[in-house]
Amino acid sequence: MTRQVDQGKALAAFQRACAGTKEEFGDFFLTRLLGLEITYPGDACEVAFEVEDFMLNPRATLHGGVLATALDICMGHLINHQASPGATLELKIQYLDAATRGRVVCRGEALRRGGTWFLRADARDSAGTLIAYATSTWKLLRKPK
Amino acid sequence: MTRQVDQGKALAAFQRACAGTKEEFGDFFLTRLLGLEITYPGDACEVAFEVEDFMLNPRATLHGGVLATALDICMGHLINHQASPGATLELKIQYLDAATRGRVVCRGEALRRGGTWFLRADARDSAGTLIAYATSTWKLLRKPK
Amino acid sequence: MTRQVDQGKALAAFQRACAGTKEEFGDFFLTRLLGLEITYPGDACEVAFEVEDFMLNPRATLHGGVLATALDICMGHLINHQASPGATLELKIQYLDAATRGRVVCRGEALRRGGTWFLRADARDSAGTLIAYATSTWKLLRKPK
Amino acid sequence: MTRQVDQGKALAAFQRACAGTKEEFGDFFLTRLLGLEITYPGDACEVAFEVEDFMLNPRATLHGGVLATALDICMGHLINHQASPGATLELKIQYLDAATRGRVVCRGEALRRGGTWFLRADARDSAGTLIAYATSTWKLLRKPK
Repeated sequence: MTRQVDQGKALAAFQRACAGTKEEFGDFFLTRLLGLEITYPGDACEVAFEVEDFMLNPRATLHGGVLATALDICMGHLINHQASPGATLELKIQYLDAATRGRVVCRGEALRRGGTWFLRADARDSAGTLIAYATSTWKLLRKPK
Repeated sequence: MTRQVDQGKALAAFQRACAGTKEEFGDFFLTRLLGLEITYPGDACEVAFEVEDFMLNPRATLHGGVLATALDICMGHLINHQASPGATLELKIQYLDAATRGRVVCRGEALRRGGTWFLRADARDSAGTLIAYATSTWKLLRKPK
Repeated sequence: MTRQVDQGKALAAFQRACAGTKEEFGDFFLTRLLGLEITYPGDACEVAFEVEDFMLNPRATLHGGVLATALDICMGHLINHQASPGATLELKIQYLDAATRGRVVCRGEALRRGGTWFLRADARDSAGTLIAYATSTWKLLRKPK
Repeated sequence: MTRQVDQGKALAAFQRACAGTKEEFGDFFLTRLLGLEITYPGDACEVAFEVEDFMLNPRATLHGGVLATALDICMGHLINHQASPGATLELKIQYLDAATRGRVVCRGEALRRGGTWFLRADARDSAGTLIAYATSTWKLLRKPK
């Protein structure tokens, strides 16, 4: 395969990651590297980013691990936003379609809150096609704020 | 939180990622960035890497998405090694313990081969403690080599 | 534990199961034993049943396996209804709350159709409380009707 | 489909279920109905049963829900045996092969013990073929005995 990663775009992402000095919810090295934009519309959390070619797998589609990272961040940030920091007990992701470029938007919602949280999230590509569907179970690490 | 990412180590990882020019199984941007060492002992695939602080979450433990990436690569590379490229239909990961530093080794094995592949993989930290357990389901993208 | 199963109700369920002579989608021994009512509102499949005490676990709540059976039937019948018989590749269920009595309604929907089907389903108790959330992946066993 | 359930065998199972008067771990209505034999070799729990045709789906193979029930019981009994009663937070099962008759043996083991338990279990048919692989996450309902 003769595909080459656009090193200029990768460098820009890396510099963005290094420019930040916080390591906290909403703004840490991985969120800056992947260019994640995290918002909280209504009761949900949304995590949006542009697919860059440094995020691809050998088949030139968005790596499932990158999508897993964005979906995990989406659900973890929702819990932190609505309660307090949590730890992922388990995460399952179904990969419905491949993304190759454009903007991906993950949207997570709580199915049940409590000492144990149950959540779901999905990811859609720029055409609105469902590309991944996730469910996860978390425990709160301390009492809600 | 006043934790700072070691930018020298992050830069070294980034330069390693950019130094490679292949985008193929065993050697692509994400494997170089995370420093994944991929081997095939016996019927298994092992993926080993050092936890660097740019891989951490806001709680200063190895991000679940990075672990998901390594586990997905572990199982996907095993399929490619033993048959041909596959696509992840679904992946579930249980997070048993947190890793903060040191070497992590993921080990994946096939539960059943065929048009649909079923696999499992685990991840252990440098003390040998089980930190994650994954199962996944894949379809082959073309007939085996 | 001094709880006793109501043998009259269990006998009625068993007789209902034995009265049927079909073993096909929508009407087979297990659906009759559990008293499952299967309908197809819109693009969904619904499976409703009354919790009987022979379906309980030692803690006197609806056994997770019975709920798994109803949810699996819900999703499998949807696929059969919309396409052709399928086989479950995998099924994940999160148990959000315990049910002890009353009517449970499972509702399943397709996330993506194709050679591989991705589905989700939930189960609610008679108060409308979400008690279980499932996702599953299936392969079609023959070309759609 | 002209398959008929052997009503004599179904009746024997039902009578066995009704003959018991306990509703506790190791011996409750569903374990008696399915004929589950529950043992604890070493650190594991094993649940064995004969496939009867009243346990089949419309395609005449062991219903995934019955297998889910046996696997859930296997892991839940292990926790109760080693600690105290638990509640399933989530359960995932991969179905690797179909069983149609003979003895099925499920074997469950703990991956991690604690306030949250992580477990895995598999099921094999009478030829030793792996037919299902499960992982689950549980919370203890009270302090261990």
